[in-house]
Amino acid sequence: MTDERFERGRDGRSSDLPSGLGVPRWLAASLNFCARCGSPLTFGVVLGEDRDRLACSACGHIAYVNPRLVVTTFPITDAGEILLIRRGIEPGVGSWAQPGGFLEVDETVHEAAIRETREETGLLVEPGEIIGLYTRLEASVVAIAFEARIVGGTAAPTIEATEIRSYPPEAIPWAEIAFSTTIWALRDWLAWRRPDIELPTPRSGR
Amino acid sequence: MTDERFERGRDGRSSDLPSGLGVPRWLAASLNFCARCGSPLTFGVVLGEDRDRLACSACGHIAYVNPRLVVTTFPITDAGEILLIRRGIEPGVGSWAQPGGFLEVDETVHEAAIRETREETGLLVEPGEIIGLYTRLEASVVAIAFEARIVGGTAAPTIEATEIRSYPPEAIPWAEIAFSTTIWALRDWLAWRRPDIELPTPRSGR
Repeated sequence: MTDERFERGRDGRSSDLPSGLGVPRWLAASLNFCARCGSPLTFGVVLGEDRDRLACSACGHIAYVNPRLVVTTFPITDAGEILLIRRGIEPGVGSWAQPGGFLEVDETVHEAAIRETREETGLLVEPGEIIGLYTRLEASVVAIAFEARIVGGTAAPTIEATEIRSYPPEAIPWAEIAFSTTIWALRDWLAWRRPDIELPTPRSGR
Repeated sequence: MTDERFERGRDGRSSDLPSGLGVPRWLAASLNFCARCGSPLTFGVVLGEDRDRLACSACGHIAYVNPRLVVTTFPITDAGEILLIRRGIEPGVGSWAQPGGFLEVDETVHEAAIRETREETGLLVEPGEIIGLYTRLEASVVAIAFEARIVGGTAAPTIEATEIRSYPPEAIPWAEIAFSTTIWALRDWLAWRRPDIELPTPRSGR
């Protein structure tokens, strides 16, 4: 489905997984019954839909399966350093990542970025430009990475972030980064804001 | 939940609806049973969660409710005109909007932008910069608007797009635009690319 002629910009980085594989198995395993009426769901042709869907033959409800948004920030200090957190919980416990989490149904994307950063670090940030938009098909998520400015609060470790530290762009701990999306976003941020710094070799991660 | 000190940039435009209202009623109405085991869901405190959740007391499955991504494009012609479609189906039938649709689980955000534009207009586009990211709490969606370049295909009306037309930025049919997100994105695009053109008065729409 991917047209190789298209250069993927910083807002369209793909997952490592090929497209077109349908619902991931781990996700399909918990989609057995209709959330509306409780009857069994079946996968197949549905009138009016241009692809096979999970649907309820009893009440007609279609169980659409869509990725969730993970909203993250890369707070940048006045000195131009990048704030990272050492993860206190799985996945990636002990490694470095950016603050972030799932977008809730009753908040805007910016509010989620502010909330998650405050919950995990104690810092109040103002989200700025989008560094990238990263689709991870294997996890059924799209991760948004915002550049952010620190405008208040006090950095304080939490259960989710056992250590909070800002790194000079030249000294990013590449070997200890938790997620591939974090590596992609850091690389994209560097290429954009600090093209003078040599990028590390790409690594495929989780 | 909104901090008024934050100027909302073009990537954080809020819905008209206030934040913090929980799951919209229309959406909650179809969330009655556990998709994993078919038992009734209950809403309330769940161990380890920092807000009330819909969960299954039989199997422990948590039914997270998250917004879906609507991926849209504003194809710009070589002459700098904006391509719009006259909607052939509800909502907004007969009015003008941009091509777009829901992100599927097995495609990247860019792939969705390309697919939806091709399905609705016959045109092949290359997504470019993000014009804006618009949260619509009442619909439980986040709409992404990409500026796009037309790189192939032939414009041909479809059931979803009964007319395809490019408008000079000075002649956008503001009174006939289908959705508030389309108006917001058009305004943001103009402010960004054509600051010489006066913006129309904001309107709150659906």
